[in-house]
Amino acid sequence: KTHIDCITSRQLITLPGFIDTHVHVREPGATHKEDYSSCTSAALAGGVTLICAMPNTNPAVVDEESLQLVQKIAKQNAHCDYAIYMGASSDNATIIPELAPQTAALKMYLNETYTTLKLEDTTVWLKHLTNWPKKAPLCVHAEKLTTAAILFFANLHNRPIHICHVARKEEILMIKAAKEKGQKVTCEVSPHHLFLSTDDISYLGPSKSEVRPVLVTPEDQKALWDNIHIIDTFATDHAPHTLEEKTGDKAPPGFPGLETILPLLLNAVHEGRLTIDDIVNKFHRNPKRIFNLPEQPDTYVEVDMDEEWVIPNALPYSKAKWTPFAGKKIRGSVHRVVLRGEVAYVEGQVLVQPGYGQNVREWQLKKTGFGL
Amino acid sequence: KTHIDCITSRQLITLPGFIDTHVHVREPGATHKEDYSSCTSAALAGGVTLICAMPNTNPAVVDEESLQLVQKIAKQNAHCDYAIYMGASSDNATIIPELAPQTAALKMYLNETYTTLKLEDTTVWLKHLTNWPKKAPLCVHAEKLTTAAILFFANLHNRPIHICHVARKEEILMIKAAKEKGQKVTCEVSPHHLFLSTDDISYLGPSKSEVRPVLVTPEDQKALWDNIHIIDTFATDHAPHTLEEKTGDKAPPGFPGLETILPLLLNAVHEGRLTIDDIVNKFHRNPKRIFNLPEQPDTYVEVDMDEEWVIPNALPYSKAKWTPFAGKKIRGSVHRVVLRGEVAYVEGQVLVQPGYGQNVREWQLKKTGFGL
Ligand SMILES: [Zn+2]
Ligand SMILES: [Zn+2]
Ligand SMILES: [Zn+2]
Ligand SMILES: [Zn+2]
Ligand SMILES: [Zn+2]
Ligand SMILES: [Zn+2]
Ligand SMILES: [Zn+2]
Ligand SMILES: [Zn+2]
Repeated sequence: KTHIDCITSRQLITLPGFIDTHVHVREPGATHKEDYSSCTSAALAGGVTLICAMPNTNPAVVDEESLQLVQKIAKQNAHCDYAIYMGASSDNATIIPELAPQTAALKMYLNETYTTLKLEDTTVWLKHLTNWPKKAPLCVHAEKLTTAAILFFANLHNRPIHICHVARKEEILMIKAAKEKGQKVTCEVSPHHLFLSTDDISYLGPSKSEVRPVLVTPEDQKALWDNIHIIDTFATDHAPHTLEEKTGDKAPPGFPGLETILPLLLNAVHEGRLTIDDIVNKFHRNPKRIFNLPEQPDTYVEVDMDEEWVIPNALPYSKAKWTPFAGKKIRGSVHRVVLRGEVAYVEGQVLVQPGYGQNVREWQLKKTGFGL
Repeated sequence: KTHIDCITSRQLITLPGFIDTHVHVREPGATHKEDYSSCTSAALAGGVTLICAMPNTNPAVVDEESLQLVQKIAKQNAHCDYAIYMGASSDNATIIPELAPQTAALKMYLNETYTTLKLEDTTVWLKHLTNWPKKAPLCVHAEKLTTAAILFFANLHNRPIHICHVARKEEILMIKAAKEKGQKVTCEVSPHHLFLSTDDISYLGPSKSEVRPVLVTPEDQKALWDNIHIIDTFATDHAPHTLEEKTGDKAPPGFPGLETILPLLLNAVHEGRLTIDDIVNKFHRNPKRIFNLPEQPDTYVEVDMDEEWVIPNALPYSKAKWTPFAGKKIRGSVHRVVLRGEVAYVEGQVLVQPGYGQNVREWQLKKTGFGL
């Protein structure tokens, strides 16, 4: 596979393979929305070479059996590398800790979301916070005062936590204050909270704009940008639903995001709101460190800093076939992705086969001799 | 006023005047439920010589004008001594700190309760936590995970807080853990959470048993008793509504409690669940210290440890004219109350006039020369 550039004057820069630690693959259980093949293709098209797959599938990943099922599906179908989350349930706190080395992280759903994994009882929170190995990552969906509550419990037990998709001013200010006090907390922000707000609901419409956390006010959004140095990671919270689902009654919350995140971030560099270093830190180095992920050898992404384009109504790979960013003028695109020495993606084409992707936790288990 | 005991064999013991830091007087705004005269008479009948009056009246106590209105009403009508709370609202965080020396404490309503003072926004919580003088008491109505959230914020700012009416296992365990970590937190428990549970709802009926926090499970109740050493104060949360209101549709939450708290606590001494020292600590010494209240000179309560009686359908002084403890067999009663040298109550009779009660914060302001 070789490739010769048509236009040699373009400004191509080489960046590391990006790591998206918040992806809803939808397989098993809702493969009409997305599956391992479509999701990991979308990832490569977005410059993402490693995804962490959320556990709220059907069945949910809550024990060894469900983990093995998803491991098998991913092994056969993934185009890019991956790790798989374990979900905290009301009754699995004692059985899952031994599975920690096989997983991306533990995910705790503390707020009302569209999942069966919602944890109602703070005594259950505590069991997970204390049982899950301290060196294994632990992520929470926690909004508004739930963020303060989980920070309280985590601080009591000196337990590092990672807070997903921070969206509101009050949330980022809590995390800032906790960090200043020395608490071990990290946090991520999703592109739709950085680049969309309640001002966009009028043209998206109430159904399409449904997402959790909801789209926030321009004041909240400004607080995210003002505190960008507090934000450790960018992650898509890629949560695809079909156009049909998103335009029907009772539209489920969630946006696709894998194919647009890197272009949106590159565009923000052109706007002077981010630096390339911010992107490399928050979308490669920090997720790698926080989630203890291995470096992917011979892996990099070539981006075109100057290509101007308009985000279309649907991106090529995700089965969602819609995007909340449609119509947005962008400067910057993903040109080529090399994954472990192979050209995995170039100019719109995914070139590696399903099954090329590997479970990065297996690499680490082999190295440390834990085995699977 | 003299009094000679008919039965000399009874076991009378002398205890200090009790301090109830959580009383809803209902005046101004709902004097058909209770007023300063009826409420402070009920207090004396219950061995309580000093009450702290909650601010969720109508008008609510949220500024200098409303505070002065309630100060005036109380001065004219109170039979026992008192101090008056300030309520935290969404817009008074900057204007009330200078009024702190005149008030019992600041009260923050953080959960859905039947008040206009509910604080929705955690950025408003923070303003109050940081603006209210650190030496002035600050009390919160916080249930379940809201308790964890306010503990988080208070810890960030090293701000002492007092948590009202702790009711659930998860709440008392959070407070225990915070205390063990050295956080400056104190807490109170109400008699209806110590002596009633969800097991009592069947005979009370769903309307009469409405209270916030709700009546808890026997398991929660057991956790309160198991952790009685963590509980700093007893307070009634005396929240009278008329029998008519409590038996109608949409019964408002709340129980009267002033006339029954001390007998219930004395009965628990006979049952071996409390000691007299526990009562003196949690219902006199600790509230005095936590709320920085002055000692009332020449003030004491004589209790009869052996009198056996059954709590009637209504107690004499509160306008509520019902009690959730009706029918309960009790050993122990209030015999005589001496308040600042005067026999204020004896064997069923309140002997001091409306206006005898004094605002104890005025004593302190005169002493320190702040003046009013
Ligand atoms: Zn090219
Ligand atoms: Zn989430
Ligand atoms: Zn998500
Ligand atoms: Zn790297
Ligand atoms: Zn007598
Ligand atoms: Zn309350
Ligand atoms: Zn109350
Ligand atoms: Zn004393």
